[in-house]
Amino acid sequence: MDRKVKVAIVGAGSAGLYAMSEVRKQTQDFVLINGGELGTTCARVGCMPSKVAIQVSEDFHRRHVFSRYGLEGKETLSLDTTEAMEYVRDLRDNFVDRVLSNSTDQLPKENFIEGYAEFLDINVLKVGQQTIHADKIILATGSRPYVPTEWQQQFGDKILTTDELFEQESLPPSIAVIGLGVIGLEMGQALHRIGINVTGIDQCQNIANLVDPNVNQVAVDTLQKEFPLWLGHPAVITPIDDMLKVSSGDKDVTVDKVLLSMGRIPNLETLGIDKLSIKRNAKGIPDYNPNTMQIGDLPIFIAGDVSGDRPILHEAGDEGRIAGYNAVHQAITAFQRKTPMNITFCDPNIVSVGKLYSELDLDTTAIGEIKFSIVGRAMIMAKNRGLIRVYACKENGKILGMTMIGPKGENLAHLVAWVIEQKLTVIDLLQMPFYHPVIEEALQAVLYQLVSKIDSPLPAVLSLKPLANHI
Amino acid sequence: MDRKVKVAIVGAGSAGLYAMSEVRKQTQDFVLINGGELGTTCARVGCMPSKVAIQVSEDFHRRHVFSRYGLEGKETLSLDTTEAMEYVRDLRDNFVDRVLSNSTDQLPKENFIEGYAEFLDINVLKVGQQTIHADKIILATGSRPYVPTEWQQQFGDKILTTDELFEQESLPPSIAVIGLGVIGLEMGQALHRIGINVTGIDQCQNIANLVDPNVNQVAVDTLQKEFPLWLGHPAVITPIDDMLKVSSGDKDVTVDKVLLSMGRIPNLETLGIDKLSIKRNAKGIPDYNPNTMQIGDLPIFIAGDVSGDRPILHEAGDEGRIAGYNAVHQAITAFQRKTPMNITFCDPNIVSVGKLYSELDLDTTAIGEIKFSIVGRAMIMAKNRGLIRVYACKENGKILGMTMIGPKGENLAHLVAWVIEQKLTVIDLLQMPFYHPVIEEALQAVLYQLVSKIDSPLPAVLSLKPLANHI
Repeated sequence: MDRKVKVAIVGAGSAGLYAMSEVRKQTQDFVLINGGELGTTCARVGCMPSKVAIQVSEDFHRRHVFSRYGLEGKETLSLDTTEAMEYVRDLRDNFVDRVLSNSTDQLPKENFIEGYAEFLDINVLKVGQQTIHADKIILATGSRPYVPTEWQQQFGDKILTTDELFEQESLPPSIAVIGLGVIGLEMGQALHRIGINVTGIDQCQNIANLVDPNVNQVAVDTLQKEFPLWLGHPAVITPIDDMLKVSSGDKDVTVDKVLLSMGRIPNLETLGIDKLSIKRNAKGIPDYNPNTMQIGDLPIFIAGDVSGDRPILHEAGDEGRIAGYNAVHQAITAFQRKTPMNITFCDPNIVSVGKLYSELDLDTTAIGEIKFSIVGRAMIMAKNRGLIRVYACKENGKILGMTMIGPKGENLAHLVAWVIEQKLTVIDLLQMPFYHPVIEEALQAVLYQLVSKIDSPLPAVLSLKPLANHI
Repeated sequence: MDRKVKVAIVGAGSAGLYAMSEVRKQTQDFVLINGGELGTTCARVGCMPSKVAIQVSEDFHRRHVFSRYGLEGKETLSLDTTEAMEYVRDLRDNFVDRVLSNSTDQLPKENFIEGYAEFLDINVLKVGQQTIHADKIILATGSRPYVPTEWQQQFGDKILTTDELFEQESLPPSIAVIGLGVIGLEMGQALHRIGINVTGIDQCQNIANLVDPNVNQVAVDTLQKEFPLWLGHPAVITPIDDMLKVSSGDKDVTVDKVLLSMGRIPNLETLGIDKLSIKRNAKGIPDYNPNTMQIGDLPIFIAGDVSGDRPILHEAGDEGRIAGYNAVHQAITAFQRKTPMNITFCDPNIVSVGKLYSELDLDTTAIGEIKFSIVGRAMIMAKNRGLIRVYACKENGKILGMTMIGPKGENLAHLVAWVIEQKLTVIDLLQMPFYHPVIEEALQAVLYQLVSKIDSPLPAVLSLKPLANHI
């Protein structure tokens, strides 16, 4: 069966759905093609269920501060992890339903095809028995957890990824988490806090992809007080009876299961793009322009996790919108990408916004930092652990980036990202209102410290704009 | 004893100390005069101890969600309120010590006088036996809780204010809270949550000074699920044996103590300003310019709670700095005041930022709102109660203000206040990064709703800036 459409979108995840929202504004002559389960990585196995598990684990963990102020009885609190996992799935299902009911559920039949798409030619896709000729094609096939083939084969269902984790009806007594990026840290800490014996392992010395050495040090010190982090050596897995022995350097532990969080890989293979002469980058991903999402000068666009960059929902949304917009407009428009944000929702949050430490010219950058141990509100919250570092241009005081581990990092991340979007300076920020006592005052303290490290002329009163400037 | 100084600062609270910080940059020829206890209202009896009590009460209250996800045993949790109050005082003392050690503790003896100051003339103050001739005088005498004289006389220590509350070694079984502004709501809810039988009473129909009728309705509905709020009738107190009967309209309750939170009044009386011919405003406060803090064209400045406006720490800081700066500079400089922020740290937070509902021209204002019940992250936090409303200019989309009750209101308050400071629009904000899943997405949802209500031309893709705009 042959069919002609203006646009074919391959993948009904977040990026594909956002692409569709732009395409539909211009034409109804499109198909959305999806292989595998519907419901987006975010809602099914990503952001949403992980945040539910984290919330449960934080609530349970909080009991450790109770005795400071006469709240007694924490010993009798117990968490039924089977019930907790059910709750995670219940909420997850709710979120998945919301996604579906707002997207594919209400799509006319002719706009949706279930199946895996494969390129026959630049403008031609095969899905099962159908051949789709599309003026424009958007690739939004997402990604999947990386699992070394031999481990998969050897250890089978003793190896979990986030694809399986939330489906577990009951959790085993012990788990080794291999890979301490965002997912490994979030889930490792959550599992530890709900009572699983967790060992965290990473072959790097830095966790949560931190490149700022000072913040990484504080992050490692802080989290390893909760559960062991074995850093700097690759993990080796050996089966022992019904268990797995996981070694790293000179340490080893025997566990029931392993949670693999060694990154995600783009879903490209089944697309058959090798048939097309497309230039690929070092990761094997088709070369594309991140401002237009166009692959080379082909009528093909890419969006979301499959692009191998910025694997987070709001960026997938932007990429989908850019791809969708450009797929239905004659001229290709380049769009500005947003100030980078990375949040690991462990406790304390680990956050980087704007420029990373490794992207700074240290000669021209001023760095201010304070520890959360002295921040009033953090003390009140009994969450006074962590370090916040802000990078600013020495010459003009512009805020370049922030890296931190600390309470309410996710909220500070927005404040600082929005400030960087607007190219504001240390002085501009000090003239903003900071309420009291709030966690934002940690940022304020760093800014005051930065004042002496930048060359900008100072206003009469640092924290106030003269009225003449009032527009 | 006669003495001449360039500047006399009356009051060593937050405003006085900030004033001193500006004065000291120009001269050491000043005195700081303080009557009564040192340590600032904020640290001693205000922001700080109240936030500690709120944190304890929130931690204890959180047990009510435990059973949703299999966390059992909450029935055996019990809070020893005597120990909790000790903890509040311990932390409070810590904060007070920090204030003192950074201010009066390190002040040379000749710069500090203990005692109440009284005007003898425009430039002359009397403190005990000393007469101080000062070129400039800064009034920063703060405020005190309002207590009707007859109640004070009749009921004595059965009437508490925040001056006494945190000093209570043990708390009584029942308390009526009269006055449901910021302090009454914060402390009323906290006391209720730690196990006191609390009745909240206010003669108005709105709580937390809310003027947005929709948010007020949600706030009243939400909080009154926790403890009774009797609104719309003044409170009448009658002694009954060793208790107090508190009536309001046709309701009454018999309680051990009453917490009075009917506002604070400026400490002006003992200053003897009636001797000077100073114009006063309707509240009896000397007429001053809020951008210069100068009283009329006199060599007298006013700052902090005594000014009767914006009784919050960061505004007291600004007023102190403005007064201090102008007291030591020949020409008077007018400074811009910050975007108004008001936060009631109850749970959920009640917040207003920028223009209040009552200050809007409803014909030219677009209002967007959503309930937190549908916000993903709020659901995950099990804090999906509340309403957020954002006001924008219909014509150009500029954000004018936000009023809300909801989780993390204090953090959203900063985000929106900073945006208003920069005169950003609905479209500007939609082009900022919003991570996922975060509470900031509640704001994003309101902004999307506002798009259809404003007249601004829309960009090609709503949430993206074309690259050409990139500077």
